[in-house]
Amino acid sequence: LEADTMSSRFAPRHDDYEGAVRASFARQGVLASWGATMDRVAPGRVDLALPFSARVTQQQGFFHGGVVATLGDSAGGYAAMTLLDAGLEIVSVEYKINFVAPAVGQRLLAFGTCLKAGRRLLVSEARVDVEEAGTRRLCAILLQTLAPVMPRLSGS
Amino acid sequence: LEADTMSSRFAPRHDDYEGAVRASFARQGVLASWGATMDRVAPGRVDLALPFSARVTQQQGFFHGGVVATLGDSAGGYAAMTLLDAGLEIVSVEYKINFVAPAVGQRLLAFGTCLKAGRRLLVSEARVDVEEAGTRRLCAILLQTLAPVMPRLSGS
Amino acid sequence: LEADTMSSRFAPRHDDYEGAVRASFARQGVLASWGATMDRVAPGRVDLALPFSARVTQQQGFFHGGVVATLGDSAGGYAAMTLLDAGLEIVSVEYKINFVAPAVGQRLLAFGTCLKAGRRLLVSEARVDVEEAGTRRLCAILLQTLAPVMPRLSGS
Amino acid sequence: LEADTMSSRFAPRHDDYEGAVRASFARQGVLASWGATMDRVAPGRVDLALPFSARVTQQQGFFHGGVVATLGDSAGGYAAMTLLDAGLEIVSVEYKINFVAPAVGQRLLAFGTCLKAGRRLLVSEARVDVEEAGTRRLCAILLQTLAPVMPRLSGS
Repeated sequence: LEADTMSSRFAPRHDDYEGAVRASFARQGVLASWGATMDRVAPGRVDLALPFSARVTQQQGFFHGGVVATLGDSAGGYAAMTLLDAGLEIVSVEYKINFVAPAVGQRLLAFGTCLKAGRRLLVSEARVDVEEAGTRRLCAILLQTLAPVMPRLSGS
Repeated sequence: LEADTMSSRFAPRHDDYEGAVRASFARQGVLASWGATMDRVAPGRVDLALPFSARVTQQQGFFHGGVVATLGDSAGGYAAMTLLDAGLEIVSVEYKINFVAPAVGQRLLAFGTCLKAGRRLLVSEARVDVEEAGTRRLCAILLQTLAPVMPRLSGS
Repeated sequence: LEADTMSSRFAPRHDDYEGAVRASFARQGVLASWGATMDRVAPGRVDLALPFSARVTQQQGFFHGGVVATLGDSAGGYAAMTLLDAGLEIVSVEYKINFVAPAVGQRLLAFGTCLKAGRRLLVSEARVDVEEAGTRRLCAILLQTLAPVMPRLSGS
Repeated sequence: LEADTMSSRFAPRHDDYEGAVRASFARQGVLASWGATMDRVAPGRVDLALPFSARVTQQQGFFHGGVVATLGDSAGGYAAMTLLDAGLEIVSVEYKINFVAPAVGQRLLAFGTCLKAGRRLLVSEARVDVEEAGTRRLCAILLQTLAPVMPRLSGS
């Protein structure tokens, strides 16, 4: 017996789920300014990567906890967004994050997986690994609740 | 690339980790009174099952949310306990649980996995499935922090 | 400057919010079987109490963690329910609980406060104190997300 | 009856708790680069403020969720640090945050309060308000677990 993994059964609800997610990520100023990239996009699954730089570290040269959380929150959020109807955006209602090891290394990798895609609420988890000299270690795990929203009309 | 899964590397710290966990579970009055059973015990992994009964349901015949949480909390806690030194017990520092589907069915199954086993703190997750007419569905997911403790000396 | 306390501004949305909350609590089989009582009911605020008994303790005579969580979850949930439209019930979407002291004593007291009452989601917190020989101590704190739901037609 | 508020009983463990907290905050590169200020420091209580700027907003001009979380995490963490022995630093073990309203406005205010100061673990909460045209609204609430640590010896 294994735990039910909901995400294996997920189907996207429109053809351009990947384009919608990548376009939203490109508009996300903060992650872009940190040099984050969106690697894998699949139904219910998004992976992000973030290289080391002075902008994302605290004084000891670790990745800052706020950066780890933001990357994990984004990976889980975009994983959920792959399962929305066309034209909807996703917002985080809440999340919980455990920091399990210092984020010391050259690169952060965040693996977001949607666990439940309801009509009004979605639940995702994200694991954040840190890569140091070619070795990867789990450094944080995040469990979050998300909601679909209509995008704000913006003149810009 | 896949997320790092720490638990694959876990090794128990004494030979009788399974006996210690099963003995602690047997003393756990509440779960026993509900008819819960401990199925799988492996390093960093414990599965529990709980049959339907009037004692664990609310008025609509669903498994009560408090029961779902208690079963998940116990599965994750015992998963962590498999990795402790001989003689130590485990306590939950905190947990977060998402209820993702109504717990309607004949049996609950909780799958606890330790994600990080530090010396002072451990982190586990648990997934709770509900089984209804032979089909299983994810109904809750729990992420928790645990601490090893010396057992209380009890004269009783 | 003090933190904004949303709940001071809450107004109930119908006259019989107290009756609706007390009727729902009376149908809640598990809490009733444990001897829990609903003390204060006010807009955005509900207090529950639970006396010590063999039914709610683990083998060491502490209140069981699952009982502490269930009482806190119920106090926060009913605090949110006081602010719903007539005829709606409340369900917990998720919660996080920190156990800050052993629940050793003669009585648990749970203080639920709604912090945000949105149309689709509500957020409550609950503090659970344990009373021992006339002294009260904080033993758990819970932060939760809730959603209004139409009650199931029962009779079936 | 009111909920027990542990923090009213807190006493600092050394005379220069305020100096220690302010010095740590000054070394915290990310918050400083965002223009955050530490306003109130009292035993078990720290308030932070953060003015609006392009560095801390997303494309729609809201404060970014990661910034809200980082400010709340820091306020709660420093609130806990006021209660540590001299020479110790604080780290976040985990936190949960609920985003209850869009962070639209000119200034964020974070109110951190320590709820429990144990020897090995501390628990804090933080409320984050946003100020818009002179009105303040709750926009996030955070509940976190923290641990004291020896500072790393650094050559710098």
